[in-house]
Amino acid sequence: MPDDYLGVSRYFCAKHLAMEAEFHRWLKETLPGHPRLPVPVGDDAALLQLDTTGCVVAVDTISDEVDFELRATDPRRIGHKALGVNLSDLAAMAAEPVACVVALMLPEPNAAELAREVILGMLPLAEEFDCPIAGGDVHVWTHPLALTVTVVGQQQQPVQRTGARVGNKIAVTGAFGGSILGRHLDVRPRIREMHTLRSRCEVLAAIDCSDGLSLDLDRLALASGVGAEIEAEQIPIHPDAQRLSEKTGRTPLQHALTDGEDFELILAIGADDAEELSRRTSSQATQEPVAAPLSIIGQFVEPPGLWIRQPDGSRQPLIAKGYQHGS
Amino acid sequence: MPDDYLGVSRYFCAKHLAMEAEFHRWLKETLPGHPRLPVPVGDDAALLQLDTTGCVVAVDTISDEVDFELRATDPRRIGHKALGVNLSDLAAMAAEPVACVVALMLPEPNAAELAREVILGMLPLAEEFDCPIAGGDVHVWTHPLALTVTVVGQQQQPVQRTGARVGNKIAVTGAFGGSILGRHLDVRPRIREMHTLRSRCEVLAAIDCSDGLSLDLDRLALASGVGAEIEAEQIPIHPDAQRLSEKTGRTPLQHALTDGEDFELILAIGADDAEELSRRTSSQATQEPVAAPLSIIGQFVEPPGLWIRQPDGSRQPLIAKGYQHGS
Repeated sequence: MPDDYLGVSRYFCAKHLAMEAEFHRWLKETLPGHPRLPVPVGDDAALLQLDTTGCVVAVDTISDEVDFELRATDPRRIGHKALGVNLSDLAAMAAEPVACVVALMLPEPNAAELAREVILGMLPLAEEFDCPIAGGDVHVWTHPLALTVTVVGQQQQPVQRTGARVGNKIAVTGAFGGSILGRHLDVRPRIREMHTLRSRCEVLAAIDCSDGLSLDLDRLALASGVGAEIEAEQIPIHPDAQRLSEKTGRTPLQHALTDGEDFELILAIGADDAEELSRRTSSQATQEPVAAPLSIIGQFVEPPGLWIRQPDGSRQPLIAKGYQHGS
Repeated sequence: MPDDYLGVSRYFCAKHLAMEAEFHRWLKETLPGHPRLPVPVGDDAALLQLDTTGCVVAVDTISDEVDFELRATDPRRIGHKALGVNLSDLAAMAAEPVACVVALMLPEPNAAELAREVILGMLPLAEEFDCPIAGGDVHVWTHPLALTVTVVGQQQQPVQRTGARVGNKIAVTGAFGGSILGRHLDVRPRIREMHTLRSRCEVLAAIDCSDGLSLDLDRLALASGVGAEIEAEQIPIHPDAQRLSEKTGRTPLQHALTDGEDFELILAIGADDAEELSRRTSSQATQEPVAAPLSIIGQFVEPPGLWIRQPDGSRQPLIAKGYQHGS
């Protein structure tokens, strides 16, 4: 007699325990060992051997229909994004990756294959940033794919959002806008850029840009209790913003300011440091190969709020927006 | 002009960013501060100040339709369960809780209220086990509620599944069976019981019982490369198993062996230690108030596999099963 008193849902879970066991076997065989992970994958929890006692933890869920479209996307790119967005959070805190754990909500059919593909999509990024997968949880259901990655990093002195002061310069890595054309899947966490920058100057505050340059800059300014003024001409605009602009009729600058999912860093650094960095950069024939270019786009100012200065010297309030504009 | 090139899904996300911001504000106001969390909630990542460099991480997702039924359940109990199952994993590793992070997939409508209720359901357990909520991620969608909790603990010498040896006794906390009658929501993580036990004897291996006593015992035995033999008479059977038995026609013992979601610990301890513990327990008028009773239910044996010994001395193979029985 089947245990129907347990209800259909319990069966559903029951039915997939074998898949879960198989997935854990596959994980054990597939995941490379790592000296920071003395306990093999598959125990009740993972043991991570840190070098310090400052443990930095970020968690983010991405799901089908919201953050990607499974039917149109290689699952490996989805795996890459799920890990990448979390590493980007570690980058903003200047933390060094230690390891990650992955919780998968898998739709039927082909849940097992999908699980393997998303994990395989994470592995190159995990290796590149020395952030091994230490364990995982799989859950099969009749609803869309969702991936929750938790990354653990280490850092005794993380950079926070609260440290920007009036007179500091606003710096950004990379370029902005139009990520929806596909770049949002190919997150490049700015871990090394933050590390290099911090070896050269004091980084006073940082945030990663996931919801839009104007919105995330506003968040950083608010958390620090200051305002922010950016120079329209100085915003690094991604070629994707230009391409998208041709379809939408909005300007490339508008896209750069509001699209989001650029996963670049917005940083506060002292004015003297910014000048010194600019001098170095312009005197060097080549950037370091790992580094996204750094641009100074404005400064933190006294009055709260966001401002944009046009090439003619005029200054207007800038409305912080990103994904919010649909609301 | 709405940015309809972003697609409906992006709007969906956009529409809820305001809710997310509001939720983060509420979290900041609601979550008590904690000396181990020097960075306020709401930065790119959480900073956890550990006492050691041995960092233990567990992650588990629970979802509507699989692990609970939202329409029939107080959301606070769901929050309690989501944190409880993870603390139970830490208990099995003998790790001390440090903090947790929470990722919520929220159905409409009333996503914001639901988010607050599940968090409020976690707080008493978080306080009791000194495991503050350090941060969270919310995601609103048109699908069922799912909660992924990641707990971070600390322990330089965790107990693993691999340490059971032939001749060791099999000990369990608490009683088994019938958790589906409601107890599965009221997880009592055996953190203190493990701590107390470890102060009295060497715990050689452990696993938490989520999928069924026979199945999880089999997992522990397999991981340790030994077999396990249990005494039918010694299995502590929960009154819920008795009650459920009256409905199902299966014996209370069958329920105890296979139902799962008991969230008790299965442990391997040396034979001498087991004898000493039994002597102490029987000579004490009262158990410590925090401690679930400990029972010795059998021993680890040479031949691989699971065995059950009946009161008449006969021994049969025991099929490891739990949630798998539907497959």
